[in-house]
Amino acid sequence: MARFQPPQRYSSPHLPFGDRRDAPFYGRHIISVRQFSRDDLTYIFGVAHEMREMVMRIGAFDLLKGKILANLFYEPSTRTASSFVAAMERLGGSVIAINEVRYSSVTKGESLPDTVRTLEAYADVIVLRHPQQGAAALAAKYARKPIINAGDGAGEHPTQALLDLFTIREELGTVDGLTVTMLGDLRYGRTVHSLARLLSLYRVRLNYVSPPNLRMPREIVAELEAKGVPQAEYDRLEPVLAETDVLYVTRVQKERFDDPTEYEQVKDAFVITPQVMAQAKERMILMHPFPRVYEITEEVDADPRAAYFRQMEYGLYVRMALLAMVLGKA
Amino acid sequence: MARFQPPQRYSSPHLPFGDRRDAPFYGRHIISVRQFSRDDLTYIFGVAHEMREMVMRIGAFDLLKGKILANLFYEPSTRTASSFVAAMERLGGSVIAINEVRYSSVTKGESLPDTVRTLEAYADVIVLRHPQQGAAALAAKYARKPIINAGDGAGEHPTQALLDLFTIREELGTVDGLTVTMLGDLRYGRTVHSLARLLSLYRVRLNYVSPPNLRMPREIVAELEAKGVPQAEYDRLEPVLAETDVLYVTRVQKERFDDPTEYEQVKDAFVITPQVMAQAKERMILMHPFPRVYEITEEVDADPRAAYFRQMEYGLYVRMALLAMVLGKA
Amino acid sequence: MARFQPPQRYSSPHLPFGDRRDAPFYGRHIISVRQFSRDDLTYIFGVAHEMREMVMRIGAFDLLKGKILANLFYEPSTRTASSFVAAMERLGGSVIAINEVRYSSVTKGESLPDTVRTLEAYADVIVLRHPQQGAAALAAKYARKPIINAGDGAGEHPTQALLDLFTIREELGTVDGLTVTMLGDLRYGRTVHSLARLLSLYRVRLNYVSPPNLRMPREIVAELEAKGVPQAEYDRLEPVLAETDVLYVTRVQKERFDDPTEYEQVKDAFVITPQVMAQAKERMILMHPFPRVYEITEEVDADPRAAYFRQMEYGLYVRMALLAMVLGKA
Repeated sequence: MARFQPPQRYSSPHLPFGDRRDAPFYGRHIISVRQFSRDDLTYIFGVAHEMREMVMRIGAFDLLKGKILANLFYEPSTRTASSFVAAMERLGGSVIAINEVRYSSVTKGESLPDTVRTLEAYADVIVLRHPQQGAAALAAKYARKPIINAGDGAGEHPTQALLDLFTIREELGTVDGLTVTMLGDLRYGRTVHSLARLLSLYRVRLNYVSPPNLRMPREIVAELEAKGVPQAEYDRLEPVLAETDVLYVTRVQKERFDDPTEYEQVKDAFVITPQVMAQAKERMILMHPFPRVYEITEEVDADPRAAYFRQMEYGLYVRMALLAMVLGKA
Repeated sequence: MARFQPPQRYSSPHLPFGDRRDAPFYGRHIISVRQFSRDDLTYIFGVAHEMREMVMRIGAFDLLKGKILANLFYEPSTRTASSFVAAMERLGGSVIAINEVRYSSVTKGESLPDTVRTLEAYADVIVLRHPQQGAAALAAKYARKPIINAGDGAGEHPTQALLDLFTIREELGTVDGLTVTMLGDLRYGRTVHSLARLLSLYRVRLNYVSPPNLRMPREIVAELEAKGVPQAEYDRLEPVLAETDVLYVTRVQKERFDDPTEYEQVKDAFVITPQVMAQAKERMILMHPFPRVYEITEEVDADPRAAYFRQMEYGLYVRMALLAMVLGKA
Repeated sequence: MARFQPPQRYSSPHLPFGDRRDAPFYGRHIISVRQFSRDDLTYIFGVAHEMREMVMRIGAFDLLKGKILANLFYEPSTRTASSFVAAMERLGGSVIAINEVRYSSVTKGESLPDTVRTLEAYADVIVLRHPQQGAAALAAKYARKPIINAGDGAGEHPTQALLDLFTIREELGTVDGLTVTMLGDLRYGRTVHSLARLLSLYRVRLNYVSPPNLRMPREIVAELEAKGVPQAEYDRLEPVLAETDVLYVTRVQKERFDDPTEYEQVKDAFVITPQVMAQAKERMILMHPFPRVYEITEEVDADPRAAYFRQMEYGLYVRMALLAMVLGKA
């Protein structure tokens, strides 16, 4: 696990009129899901919901006009990068997009702290995607401007977890009282780890459905156990499908199996088809962090319970909220 | 040929005030030159002409403020990508530039429909460049937001054909009554195919001048024949130069010839020099889709009839017009 | 040395209201430090200082709203590219970022003049980074819109030299009367060559401290000699450290030495540590063009005399000033 550096207050000499220094997240880094209390989440989702309503009504507005985001991606992630760019632009702000890090002098020996201190000379907030666990916390240690972690390798991807939870809240109205079933590769997917941690702040029941070699890590199960979260593990979806309110699917990858025949034996149990959906509640939602390959068939897309495309739109609103908040505008 | 999917109306929940739902191209996809009637072209060129006047007068204006273009290029094309970026920015809109598709997870197994449905969660319109014929039509089949085809392999590049035609209109005042001579590789150049199709909506005479192995495809000749367009084929420019109003040049590439000596024999006949221009009408224009390598010598650039740099500027206006139109603002 | 093409006046048909045609740098190319008089520098730094105050006060403003910068980088330079993007965006302008030139058709045979003439059909100003010496002057010869040289190989990088000088002025209040010591690789670093030339317009004393094989080129020493600038050369920092007002550090690279043992013998003499800083004036500044690797240790960063991160911020203001000036807005 990434050792989490507690987020630091940031005080900048560039304080445009109208910034609310007393705003709860003003100048904060967004590094880990562990930094959020349930009250924090309520606040973030309230702002994200307002963002959603504004976008539905007028598309875009000038809340962050004159602000610049440095979108620093050390590894490509079109989906996440585009989502942050759109979030900044829908708020009237501008973006420095840095995607070609692999070819640039940045990678020729320059340290991440030096790069971050360079970019904060130009920008007001930095979104960082980096292949190494702990990179975002390291950047935050040196940065005077807010850092938002957009994924640090095997570490965390907190804005993904936030958008997952926001999706549940917006789609089902509440999180408390729900049964959430996570399906697929629960061992290597940082998405489900972070989401499980956030869900532990609510009154939920968690089911883990995975092949035996891809079970949820013991440390996370223990962490939630200590918090009194009811959890159960399965190797097939069938026993829990009917009681599931949220079915969160991740891909089971062939490369995770030493023996290919073992993969062939289990893989079909982790594919969602219209036949599987027919057994599910009428009011449930099907989620996926994307990209999906074969694990949800295309026929399912037409099912109104398929929430994965709406999930991306919720991601836009959550990222708009976070950008506005750390810049003192919400 | 790409089978053309008729463009679909698009109805979005995000309808900012001021959108004109009754505008002729509102929410339409721009996929193929075959979708346009002559009235459509008159309308598009009227809007493009207004865009030209506005840019000449004030440089930029906020017609698309708050709108976001996803510029999705699966293969690099600096010229076309830059032109769309500039078009959106001159209208006050913003851009998500996605150029590095080859390295991104987008190409790791994700289907084009999934990528498009992701991007429309963030953006208001998608410009797509893709190496596979039919890609734009496929994207349009799934998209709720307008798709503009910026080239799909051996398929079409409709905005290039529109800007070519707009160039003729703006430079010579009218299209009817003109003699248009296409020179060079007429077999593999999708540019000349699309332009020929658009020209068939007007009262023109077409000359095709090419090496024997690079003649205009029979199906296109037949198509225009059926519409009553006078066409004639030549292997040298000389017989038709004096009567030509528009000389449209494309490059004859060595790789198209099985026998290199054959290439050496013909290539000089397809190079435009000041000596060639001396034989041309005083009021004609010389066009080229660019990039050019050797097929028009640099000395020709100073000739006022050399319209190829102005052609790019006309491209800007046509793309401004299309973006404004599909977004219901023109 | 790049033969310098005198910058040309540019007259555009796109003259928005409010452009000041009589502004001193309106429509000018920025190609070489040799094009500036001392009065020019005073003017540029005055505007840059105003930019600094505006950014400190309100972060961003709309001086260049509606203007488009084509940021054309034939080789990657995240720092310089980001700085120009931020400069344009803080002035309310837009950017066409062209970073992936190596994959694009631009490099497939198209000449630099053709690329530049294409981009000026879309943009109002072009920033050019190119690996070949003389590229910026060549581009300027053909361009109707202003070209700003962002580095042309072994040639020049004038905006770096301007920001270096602006840093000295802002940090120490004046340039006249200072002792500037340049340390490290003075032979291959175009940065120190350009800065030395600019400093020759002021009343300064220059010390060059380098390994014997990496001395300042004789032609530059001769050029400054002719202008009466006091210069002295050393192979160790110690003799001049106490009298130094500005210590400008560049990296000594191993690859510059035929014999690796020779490198090992000298390298430690060119590393700045807190122990070195302890021998320096209380009111001096330590500069570096970045990226730095080992030549200034991280412990030095906390020293208030370490100006290298502030140096980047000054770069933003200088580039804002240049963009506004060549576009007739300052």
